[in-house]
Amino acid sequence: MAQIPRTRQDCEALDRADPLGGMRARFDLPEGVIYLDGHSLGPATHGALERVGRAAGEEWRSGLIRSWNNAGWFDLPARTGAKLARLAGVAPGDVVVTDSVSVNLFKLAAAGLRLTGARTVMVQSDEFPTDQSIAAGIADAGLGELKRLPPTDALAAFGAYRGVIIRSAVNYRTGEVADIDAWERVAARAGNLVVWDLSHATGVLDLRLAERGAKLAAGCTYKFLNGGPGAPAFVYARADIAQQLHSPILGWFGQKDQFDFGAAYVAKDGAARFATGTPPVLSLSALDAALDAFDGVDLAVGAAKARSLGDLVIARTASLGLETISPGEPARRGGHVSVRHQHGYAVVQALIARGIIPDFRAPDAMRFGLAPLYVRFVDVWDAMDALGDVLGTRGWDRPEYHARAAVT
Amino acid sequence: MAQIPRTRQDCEALDRADPLGGMRARFDLPEGVIYLDGHSLGPATHGALERVGRAAGEEWRSGLIRSWNNAGWFDLPARTGAKLARLAGVAPGDVVVTDSVSVNLFKLAAAGLRLTGARTVMVQSDEFPTDQSIAAGIADAGLGELKRLPPTDALAAFGAYRGVIIRSAVNYRTGEVADIDAWERVAARAGNLVVWDLSHATGVLDLRLAERGAKLAAGCTYKFLNGGPGAPAFVYARADIAQQLHSPILGWFGQKDQFDFGAAYVAKDGAARFATGTPPVLSLSALDAALDAFDGVDLAVGAAKARSLGDLVIARTASLGLETISPGEPARRGGHVSVRHQHGYAVVQALIARGIIPDFRAPDAMRFGLAPLYVRFVDVWDAMDALGDVLGTRGWDRPEYHARAAVT
Repeated sequence: MAQIPRTRQDCEALDRADPLGGMRARFDLPEGVIYLDGHSLGPATHGALERVGRAAGEEWRSGLIRSWNNAGWFDLPARTGAKLARLAGVAPGDVVVTDSVSVNLFKLAAAGLRLTGARTVMVQSDEFPTDQSIAAGIADAGLGELKRLPPTDALAAFGAYRGVIIRSAVNYRTGEVADIDAWERVAARAGNLVVWDLSHATGVLDLRLAERGAKLAAGCTYKFLNGGPGAPAFVYARADIAQQLHSPILGWFGQKDQFDFGAAYVAKDGAARFATGTPPVLSLSALDAALDAFDGVDLAVGAAKARSLGDLVIARTASLGLETISPGEPARRGGHVSVRHQHGYAVVQALIARGIIPDFRAPDAMRFGLAPLYVRFVDVWDAMDALGDVLGTRGWDRPEYHARAAVT
Repeated sequence: MAQIPRTRQDCEALDRADPLGGMRARFDLPEGVIYLDGHSLGPATHGALERVGRAAGEEWRSGLIRSWNNAGWFDLPARTGAKLARLAGVAPGDVVVTDSVSVNLFKLAAAGLRLTGARTVMVQSDEFPTDQSIAAGIADAGLGELKRLPPTDALAAFGAYRGVIIRSAVNYRTGEVADIDAWERVAARAGNLVVWDLSHATGVLDLRLAERGAKLAAGCTYKFLNGGPGAPAFVYARADIAQQLHSPILGWFGQKDQFDFGAAYVAKDGAARFATGTPPVLSLSALDAALDAFDGVDLAVGAAKARSLGDLVIARTASLGLETISPGEPARRGGHVSVRHQHGYAVVQALIARGIIPDFRAPDAMRFGLAPLYVRFVDVWDAMDALGDVLGTRGWDRPEYHARAAVT
């Protein structure tokens, strides 16, 4: 573990020595903002903005329908999927971009249940709400039976039932990482399947999913992958498993001979069979370009930096008397750190008013996202200075900071 | 029915008198192109291009996460849905923008089956392939039993079974419009539900769905609605029915207290419950702006113009000895006309090489899309001249026009 910097000068030295220091120039960050919300919506890269302009103003405007062939729109779900595959540590053909995480978790869990021949669709009771509701919807539709597992004993419970679990690789509140190897070992013994939700994991961890035995996953692309607001999500399905899976949603982008327009549906090979309808090309193009920000990035180096930044948040908030709900041990932590404060919502608003942007999750968690490609040690240092000032001056104690907006 | 123009001068006169003539200026059409493929991918409007640039370059780049509130991203699925509701002729709150047509048909048909308490999911055997495969997938997943109905006797068969049919309002090959009133009468008698696929219908017909008894529908937005490549689709669910429907995919955008993050899922009221994951904001923003091209457009006037343009295609192709598979009677026709030719694929390629863009559907249908907002009578006249020339000179008889691209 790297030494935790004790002064702003230490931070500057770390930034100078940072092998990822040059990556920040790939982002078009607004002036006067310290952005610590990459775990919610990643910022724009120069490449993504340029690409959206081209996709709309040239490919759509001038190329019109011809761009499905000439601009390569048709292959984009697979080509972008191959870029994501590197970030997940799986074979390039095992990832396809499609739909949202919600829809992808539904397809994978439903197909997985059918493959296991079992009925139980599982989630931990502290799981991300979407993952819980997707599992509940599957059960409600009559495709399985829901079991909510106690977080303290989830792995043992998972091994005792037969079926599929939807499981976040990184917990959205605490940032705790799952022991993927252990879960896959239990799954293999029990004949169960894990559908990993990689939403808070991809782009900030060295996931190496294939070598750890992971078979199925879905994830969003607008957080640490910087794909843009609501950018389409992805499906990972290991080729041998994918070949045995039947998606309940048979859309034309998942069909082998897509323009054959015959009556018989033959699914594409591999993960591509989980594609459904026509993808949102403008959003998908932004994502495709955004992923180039990871070109040349050693994922292990990125993960280590994110954890060092997290160590700094934990150390400095501890010195302010705040308690973290994130694991203290860096290896058990993803790319964000959550710190409790009774007036956390208002504290976050006060920070945002100063151009420092973390976010908040009820009831009391202030989340700080530590994206290694553009967050510097000095950024975290300055953000913690500001946090100390807000707390010391009760800077959060204004009515306007307590008024909840629609999206928190 | 309007008189069919006999000369290019007649066409010019019709264009001068066209009450929708001014609408063409809202589109950013490329030079040297006559675009007759609006039934596949509509062209860009100035407003849509400007809006995408703003959504990416300002709202995302500068606003970052704050734009969910400040730029109104959060409400966009409902606000854009209200614009679509006018074009479908339903109440503003009964439409939500979400997912693709494939996913929406799946959700609506599965939820509809459950509401009817019946098991049969139906499609006509000449239905659009996606609609057929979605129905097949529902059956394959164990949520129903598939019945493919003979096109010649479909309405009677529909009344004889119990369950749900997925039914295109306009047939993708022939352009024939369904008798929505008749289908809804039979559905009401039988206790069945029709899930209308409006993909080839919205934007080119005066649908008036509510007064015709339609309860459920989905549709794409990138054809006659000009929303951009793969723009997100929509769901229409009449409020009283929606309230009784359970979507199998319970995503967080369909949840009432979206940021409450409690364990209990309470669906939003109305069609909004069919929203699932985070929408693709860049693509959705383009769609939202594109729909403004319909501001001030009388839908009945647009539909009448599209049919007059179709009459002209039918008359002129008939004089070239070609047979149409579209209804001759304008009232039975949507916004595109299909004409048969043995070498139709190559003929279309030869036309595209001359800047005239229709499309082709196997085995032999050349489809001409007649979008009333930007296609002029002179455009159709000139396109038919070119078609005559291509046929007369065997201009299609080049090897490069026969090589099939990935997307046809």
